Amino acid sequence: MNFASDNWAGAAPAVMSALARHNTGYSPAYGTDPLTDSVGQKFNDLFEREVAVYFVATGTAANALSLAAHSRPGGAIFCHRESHIQVDECNCPEFMTSGGKLVGIPGDGAKITPTALREAMTAFPHGVVHHGQVASVSISQATECGTVYTLEEIDAIKQVADARSVPLHMDGARFANALVTLGCSAADMTWKAGVDVLSFGATKNGCWCAEAVVFFDLEAARGFEYFRKRGGHLFSKSRFVAAQFDGYFSDGSWLATAAHANDMATKLAEGIRAQGGRTAWAVEANEVFPILKRSQFEKLEAAGAKLYEWAAKDLPETIAPGEDEVCLRMVTSFATAETDVDTFLETLGAAV
Amino acid sequence: MNFASDNWAGAAPAVMSALARHNTGYSPAYGTDPLTDSVGQKFNDLFEREVAVYFVATGTAANALSLAAHSRPGGAIFCHRESHIQVDECNCPEFMTSGGKLVGIPGDGAKITPTALREAMTAFPHGVVHHGQVASVSISQATECGTVYTLEEIDAIKQVADARSVPLHMDGARFANALVTLGCSAADMTWKAGVDVLSFGATKNGCWCAEAVVFFDLEAARGFEYFRKRGGHLFSKSRFVAAQFDGYFSDGSWLATAAHANDMATKLAEGIRAQGGRTAWAVEANEVFPILKRSQFEKLEAAGAKLYEWAAKDLPETIAPGEDEVCLRMVTSFATAETDVDTFLETLGAAV
Amino acid sequence: MNFASDNWAGAAPAVMSALARHNTGYSPAYGTDPLTDSVGQKFNDLFEREVAVYFVATGTAANALSLAAHSRPGGAIFCHRESHIQVDECNCPEFMTSGGKLVGIPGDGAKITPTALREAMTAFPHGVVHHGQVASVSISQATECGTVYTLEEIDAIKQVADARSVPLHMDGARFANALVTLGCSAADMTWKAGVDVLSFGATKNGCWCAEAVVFFDLEAARGFEYFRKRGGHLFSKSRFVAAQFDGYFSDGSWLATAAHANDMATKLAEGIRAQGGRTAWAVEANEVFPILKRSQFEKLEAAGAKLYEWAAKDLPETIAPGEDEVCLRMVTSFATAETDVDTFLETLGAAV
Amino acid sequence: MNFASDNWAGAAPAVMSALARHNTGYSPAYGTDPLTDSVGQKFNDLFEREVAVYFVATGTAANALSLAAHSRPGGAIFCHRESHIQVDECNCPEFMTSGGKLVGIPGDGAKITPTALREAMTAFPHGVVHHGQVASVSISQATECGTVYTLEEIDAIKQVADARSVPLHMDGARFANALVTLGCSAADMTWKAGVDVLSFGATKNGCWCAEAVVFFDLEAARGFEYFRKRGGHLFSKSRFVAAQFDGYFSDGSWLATAAHANDMATKLAEGIRAQGGRTAWAVEANEVFPILKRSQFEKLEAAGAKLYEWAAKDLPETIAPGEDEVCLRMVTSFATAETDVDTFLETLGAAV
Repeated sequence: MNFASDNWAGAAPAVMSALARHNTGYSPAYGTDPLTDSVGQKFNDLFEREVAVYFVATGTAANALSLAAHSRPGGAIFCHRESHIQVDECNCPEFMTSGGKLVGIPGDGAKITPTALREAMTAFPHGVVHHGQVASVSISQATECGTVYTLEEIDAIKQVADARSVPLHMDGARFANALVTLGCSAADMTWKAGVDVLSFGATKNGCWCAEAVVFFDLEAARGFEYFRKRGGHLFSKSRFVAAQFDGYFSDGSWLATAAHANDMATKLAEGIRAQGGRTAWAVEANEVFPILKRSQFEKLEAAGAKLYEWAAKDLPETIAPGEDEVCLRMVTSFATAETDVDTFLETLGAAV
Repeated sequence: MNFASDNWAGAAPAVMSALARHNTGYSPAYGTDPLTDSVGQKFNDLFEREVAVYFVATGTAANALSLAAHSRPGGAIFCHRESHIQVDECNCPEFMTSGGKLVGIPGDGAKITPTALREAMTAFPHGVVHHGQVASVSISQATECGTVYTLEEIDAIKQVADARSVPLHMDGARFANALVTLGCSAADMTWKAGVDVLSFGATKNGCWCAEAVVFFDLEAARGFEYFRKRGGHLFSKSRFVAAQFDGYFSDGSWLATAAHANDMATKLAEGIRAQGGRTAWAVEANEVFPILKRSQFEKLEAAGAKLYEWAAKDLPETIAPGEDEVCLRMVTSFATAETDVDTFLETLGAAV
Repeated sequence: MNFASDNWAGAAPAVMSALARHNTGYSPAYGTDPLTDSVGQKFNDLFEREVAVYFVATGTAANALSLAAHSRPGGAIFCHRESHIQVDECNCPEFMTSGGKLVGIPGDGAKITPTALREAMTAFPHGVVHHGQVASVSISQATECGTVYTLEEIDAIKQVADARSVPLHMDGARFANALVTLGCSAADMTWKAGVDVLSFGATKNGCWCAEAVVFFDLEAARGFEYFRKRGGHLFSKSRFVAAQFDGYFSDGSWLATAAHANDMATKLAEGIRAQGGRTAWAVEANEVFPILKRSQFEKLEAAGAKLYEWAAKDLPETIAPGEDEVCLRMVTSFATAETDVDTFLETLGAAV
Repeated sequence: MNFASDNWAGAAPAVMSALARHNTGYSPAYGTDPLTDSVGQKFNDLFEREVAVYFVATGTAANALSLAAHSRPGGAIFCHRESHIQVDECNCPEFMTSGGKLVGIPGDGAKITPTALREAMTAFPHGVVHHGQVASVSISQATECGTVYTLEEIDAIKQVADARSVPLHMDGARFANALVTLGCSAADMTWKAGVDVLSFGATKNGCWCAEAVVFFDLEAARGFEYFRKRGGHLFSKSRFVAAQFDGYFSDGSWLATAAHANDMATKLAEGIRAQGGRTAWAVEANEVFPILKRSQFEKLEAAGAKLYEWAAKDLPETIAPGEDEVCLRMVTSFATAETDVDTFLETLGAAV
C-alpha cells in the first residue's frame, strides 16, 4: 500500500524495454543521434506543429531552465505560492534566472486566478526600476493539489500575461495525468490555450528521468542549448533520455499509465467519500488529499500504508481538518496495484 | 571501427542488468533509498575511509558543483588551459561558482606542472582585491590528452595548492582508466596524494549517466546537497544512478571495462608505431592521438573508421604534424571490439 | 513645501565642506588612505568596539552585499514583505546572493514579529533540501512606515534568528533617525541587541552617497572586500566617501540633522492630528503617512506641496482610508524648512 | 612628485565647484532630475547623435554592466590578457554576466590585433555548445600600457567582431586622454569606428566618481536600467554624478585636464629619453613606463618620488629590463605639477 509519491516507483515496462532495445552499438553523443531526432518528431506529431524540444533529466531543471530562457534582470516570475518552483526547488529558478524573484500568488487548490495574477502584477508597474519587471507567469498542470486547470482557465491566465507581454510557462510534471483528465489534445492544453514553453514531465509517469523543455515559439528557443549546457544538463549519452521517451510514447503507453494512475486516485477518493470521508480538493489527477481522523491515519500506517501528512493551507472552514483530524497526501502511479487500493479502503473502513 | 568517443557507447551489460534488477517495487526518492546507502558504503570501501558521496548525472555537473562548493567571490580556479572545465563545459563552472575565473595553465600533454601553477598563482597575490583570490586547483586524471599524472606529480601539485591554502579537485571523468594504468589503489590516487574533492566519472566507462562528487574532507561537504539541488541536479528516482553504480562496481566490472579500453588503446598505439607512425602524446589511458598522413586518414575514413581530427597544440617540432599530416583523436571504451582494432591497423598498413 | 523624499535634498553643509576640505593633495586609492583609517576609527568609537567597516555608495549595495556575505545556496532571507530589500531593490539581493529567496513576512507598521518570523521559518525545516535553507533575517530601522523597533523587539527577533543559527541584518538607511528616537547608544541599537551586520546609511540624512556595511563579528567580515569589489562597489577615489562620513560625524552633525528631520515629522503629525486628521502609523522617525481627504490632497498639491500617494496595506478598518480619502507619504530631512511645515499645516487647515 | 596613479588626485576645481553649485534645493532622485537631462543632452552633443546614457560611479561597474547587457549564456568576452576587465576587476565582469568567460588575447602594448582576435575566436565555432558562444569584444582606450588605438585599428577590430555578429565595447577609463591624443571627435573614436557601447570614464580625469555607460545602439540599451539597479548602481541622489559631469564638460574643462596630463607624460618621456633612458611602450596618453636602473629608482624614491614597479610582460629583448634594471609605471593627471616633473627629471639626471 504505497501511496508516498509517484517518484517512488521505478521505470514502467515500456520504458525499461526501450532502454534495453536502444542499448546497442554506437551512437553520437550530446543529442545528435538519430533516435533523438525521431523522438523529436514524435513531439512535433503530438503537438501538431513544429516545436523545439530539449531533453533534460529533472523536472527542476526543466522548470528553471524554461524560466531562465525568459528571464530579465530584476525579473518577477508569477506562480502559485504553493507551486513546486516556489516551494520545492531550493531556489533553482532563482539561481538559473540570475536572481529572479518568484512572486507567490494565493488561490484555491493551488490554482492561480486571472484576478489574483493581475493584482500581483500591479506591484510591478511598467518602467519603475526599483520594483523590477514582470518576466513570466508559470502554472502547474496538474497542480500540487491534484487539481487541473480547464482550457478556459489557462486561456484567461494567458490574457493577463499577454496584457503585460510576458510568456506563459506550464510546469507539466504531471502533464499526462492532466491531459487524460481533460480528454483534449496536447495541442489544446498547451499552445492553443496560450502556453509558450512547457516542462513536459515523464519521470513521474513511468520514466527513470526523462523531462523535456518544449518551446512552441521557435524563436524564443534560440540559444536555449547554451542555457542547458551552462547548467550542466546536457547529457553525453543523451540517447538514454531519448530511449525513455521512445518507450514512453510507444503504443500510447504514457496515456495508459496516466489513465491508470488517475483511475486509482479516483477510486480512492470515491471509496473514501463512500465511507463518509472528504478530500481537501477535487481529485482531478493522480493525487488524493483525504482528511481523516488521526486514529484512522495511525491504523492505516500500522497496516502498512505509506502516505504523508500534508500541511493543507487556506482551506475553507467546512473542509479544513478538525481538531482530531489530519490531511494526508496520497499519490498513485502506473505502479499502483488496484489490490492495494482495495486493501487501503477496507483498512480504512475497519478503522472508522 | 568506431573510435569517435567513449560516450558513443551505451551502457555496459553489468550496468544494464543492475538497472533492470533494481527496477522493482517502491523506493524512497531523492537519494534516501537503501540502495543509495549501500552504494555509498561501496565508495567508503573503495577509498578506505568514510567519504561524502553525492550522485549527479553529468560530468560537467560534477565538476562545476565541486568547484562551487569551494568557490569564493572573485575566485580564481587553476586548471590546464586545455582542460574540460576550461574548454568544454560552456561556462558551467563559471556559472555555478557565481563568476569564478578559470585560469588556464600551459603544460605538455594537458598536465600542469607545479612550476607553472605556482607562476600562475603569482598573479593573484594574497589580499590584492583587484585581482581576485585563489580558490582552487583542478587537474584531470586521465587528462584530455590521454596522459596520466603519477602519484608524485599529484603530490607536487598539492604542495603548491597547500602553500596557498586552496583545495585540489580532480576531474576523474576517466578515473578508472587512470587507476588501471597506475595500478595503485583509489585511495592512493586521491586523498593520499592530496585530492580534496573528486568528480568520480562512470559514464564514459560503461554507465548511462552516473557520476559522483566525492569529498574526502567531510566538513567541506557540509551543505553540498543544497548546491546540487539548486543546480537542478538532484534526481527524484535517484536510485537509477545508484543502480548503475551498483552494477558498475559489481565483480570488479568497472576495472575490467577500463582495462579493456586501455588495452585497446595500447594495441592501437603499438600497431601505429610498428608501422612507423607516432602519437602526439604517450598513450596512458584510453585515448590515442596518432599523427598520420592525411591520405591515410582519408583511406581510413573511407573504410568506415570513425575518428576525429584534433587541433593539437604546443607539440614540439619533432612531433607536430607536418604539412601533409594530421593529428587525430581515437578513443576506446568497454565496447571497443578487438577486431575493430585489428581491422583499423590493417587498413592503416595498407594505406601507407 | 517639498516632502517628496529624504533623497531629494543634496548634501548637508557639514558634508559638503568636508568634501572640499579633503579635496587637496594626493591620497592612496581604494580605501587605503589615512582619512579612511581615521573614519574607521570613528566607527569603532561610535559602536564602542572594534568593527569591520566597508564603505559603499548606495543603500541597495550595502544591503545586498551584507546579505551576500551571509548567503547559502538555496538560502531564504526573512524580511518584512514591504521592506526595501523585498520591494525596492530590483532583485539586487537575489542577484548578489546568487539566487537567494526573500521571504516576505506580514506585520503591522512594516515591523516583523518574532511569532510571524518563527512561523515563516517553519516552511524551511532543517535538512529538507527541496525547500532550501534559512540564511538570514533582515529588519529595517527605521522601517518603511516610519516606525522604529524597540530594543526589546530587536532582541526578541534575534532570539528567533539564533534558534536557527542565522545572523540578523539591520537595514539602517534611516539609522540616525531611529537612534535619535530611541535615545540609546548606537551599540545598544545594534550588536548589544543582537545585530550581526548593519547597513549604516548616511545618504538620506545629509550625504551625497555614503553608506557603510558594518560587521560586528570580525570573523564574518573576512573576505567581504571581495564581495564588494566583485559587485563593482569599491571606489577608486574612495576618500570621497570617507570625507562625507568625516563631515557627517563632525560635531554631532549627523544626530542634529536626524533630530531636525524627526522634529519636523513630529510637528507635521501633531499639526495634522490637531486638525482632526490621522496617520496610518505612529510617527517615530522622519516619515509621516497622513490619511487625508482627496480634496485636501488636491488643494495641497495646488499650493505647491510635494508629496506622494501611498498604497497603504493591511491597515485596520478604523484607520484605513475611506472612500474619499487617500493615504500620503511625507518625508522630512535635514533640509526641511520649518516654515514649509507651517505653510503646509496652514494650507491643510484652510482646505478642510 | 606623485606619479602613483591618476586616481590618487581628488576632484578638479571645475568638478568641485559644480558639485557645490548644484547642491541647493530639492531635486528628484534616481536620475529623473533636470540636471541629469541636461547633462544627457551634452552627451548627445558630444557624440553628434542621440545616445542612451546611464550614470554609474565606478569604472568596474561601467565595464561589467556594459558587458552584462550583451551577455549570453556560456558567453566568451574577448579582451587583451592584460586588460583591466581581465586583471583588475575581481571577476565583476564574470559575475555581472552570470558566468561569462573572459578570453585574454596577447598583443603588444596591451592592444589586441584583428589577427589575434580572429584566431582566439576560432576556439568558439558557431553552434558548438560545449565551447560556449562568442558574446562581445572589449578594447581599452587608452590601454593599460598608455598606448592608444588608431581609428583604423579600432575599425579593423570591429570588422572581426562583425564577422561573428558580436558588439564592440570600449573601456574608456582614460577616454579623454586618448581623444586628445588622436585629435579626432568623440564620434570618430567611438560609433563611427564601430564602438557599440562605451564606458565613458571621468573619474581619473578629474571627477570624484563619475562614469557613464553610453549606448550608441538605442535598441541595445533597452532594459539596461534594470541591470544597473540589480547591481546596486543606481544612485538616489544621482544628481551628484550629473553635477560632476556638468563641471567636467563645462568650458572644455575635461579636454584641458586630459591635455595637461598627456603633456606631463610626454615631457617625462622626453626627459627620460634625453638622458639616454627608454620606455617600455610608446607614450600616447598619460602613462609612462620608463625602464631605469634599479639604483636610479631607489634614488628617486629616496627623493620622494612616488611611482611603482611594473611587471612588464612580453617586451622584445631590446627593450625589456636588463638584470639591474626595473620597469616602472608613472601616471600623470590634471593635478600633476610641472615643477614635479622638472624635479623628477633633475633627480633622475643626478642619479645616472
